[in-house]
Amino acid sequence: MTTAAAAPSGFGPIRQIPAHELVVDQMRRALELGQFRPGDRLPTERELSEMLDVSRTVVRAAVAVLEREGLIAVRRGRGGGFTVQAPTYDPAETRRLMRQNKTAVRDAFDYRIVVETGATRLAAMRRRAADLTKLRTLLESMDSALDAAMQDQSAHRVTEFQTLDSAFHMGIAQACRNDYLLESVADARRKMWLPTGAIFGRLEPNANDHHEAILEAIESRDPEVAAAQMEEHILGTRHTLESWLKR
Amino acid sequence: MTTAAAAPSGFGPIRQIPAHELVVDQMRRALELGQFRPGDRLPTERELSEMLDVSRTVVRAAVAVLEREGLIAVRRGRGGGFTVQAPTYDPAETRRLMRQNKTAVRDAFDYRIVVETGATRLAAMRRRAADLTKLRTLLESMDSALDAAMQDQSAHRVTEFQTLDSAFHMGIAQACRNDYLLESVADARRKMWLPTGAIFGRLEPNANDHHEAILEAIESRDPEVAAAQMEEHILGTRHTLESWLKR
Repeated sequence: MTTAAAAPSGFGPIRQIPAHELVVDQMRRALELGQFRPGDRLPTERELSEMLDVSRTVVRAAVAVLEREGLIAVRRGRGGGFTVQAPTYDPAETRRLMRQNKTAVRDAFDYRIVVETGATRLAAMRRRAADLTKLRTLLESMDSALDAAMQDQSAHRVTEFQTLDSAFHMGIAQACRNDYLLESVADARRKMWLPTGAIFGRLEPNANDHHEAILEAIESRDPEVAAAQMEEHILGTRHTLESWLKR
Repeated sequence: MTTAAAAPSGFGPIRQIPAHELVVDQMRRALELGQFRPGDRLPTERELSEMLDVSRTVVRAAVAVLEREGLIAVRRGRGGGFTVQAPTYDPAETRRLMRQNKTAVRDAFDYRIVVETGATRLAAMRRRAADLTKLRTLLESMDSALDAAMQDQSAHRVTEFQTLDSAFHMGIAQACRNDYLLESVADARRKMWLPTGAIFGRLEPNANDHHEAILEAIESRDPEVAAAQMEEHILGTRHTLESWLKR
């Protein structure tokens, strides 16, 4: 979340961001990174107000925005609360937007390649045993989820895979033990309008390609192979997306 | 300038940034990136208020902070205005801080290597004739400035070189034509407490090493050589800094 950054060549208008927009940003980010899954309950209004250190009025304003966007459902009264919804995309609208913003799509992929291969290289040098265990579990779950999705391309299956996929990529960034890179990887993935699978509405059979090879190279502390596999993996996604845009 | 970013693993306190702090950030950034040199006049209070789209009271609050930090001098009355001061560092204090923050120093260099080599690789593919002309001019000016500084290590000489050096590195990032990377390179350089030369209080003879090789590789569209030279260049700076911290 970069705010009020000057154009590098001078001074530009300052925009102070209203508190509820900061809350929306933070909640959207948690949803997009798969920290909450569709069907999960979010903390209550009072809990969110405490965790975020803002008034309940501000929480309410943020929740209203997310509800309008269809990202959460709000049920009032006893037994009510905020429930995460599966994101819905209008494929025709998404395709139109992406075609109109080809440079932004290109830039987002280039940025993702730079920061994710960088993070992967460092992860191969710094990973601890606990990182490997976590990444291995995620990989196995992705295998099963993809198998299931190939039988039955329901929105639920696609979302399940995407959540695990985000956790896998973010887990690698965490294993590199560099907060600046972790932040950039999270940012890069958001800029790419992830989850891509949910945009296509279905998973491609290549969705889990390279993950095994990336993890093996990280396990055997081979930074160059790990980085090269990550790059190929992201280029694969880019290729899938570009073919979809041309269709 | 990353603000109010959630820890990737959940919700954290929201902090709304006061307008004058955003102005301080933007002005400090312009100074640190060498967009204004010591002795330069900044725009007037009224001009800044218009450029930044904030009240004159907000500008005044920001200027007071920068004046207190010694980054600008303020002269009141007719013929007055804001003049950029050469940054001053207390080497003993800086060394103490950096020794206490070894992880932050390591992370900043790792981050800089990732984003600057990434930007350099793309710059070698996308540079235009105008980029090359600009970078060549900066390189020649750095040569002269370093020669002069080797004769006379005055603060003025050191600052002059650092301003050109920042412009050279940012010029490469601009030539890569990716706003996300440009923003990250600017950020990475700030995190490294640049200008490093001003911290040492003198220029090292190796300050201009690799610049020529980087530019030649960009000119001849050789992404891998350009990136490798950039990496060696940054590792050289890291080595100089680490030796200085051990002294």
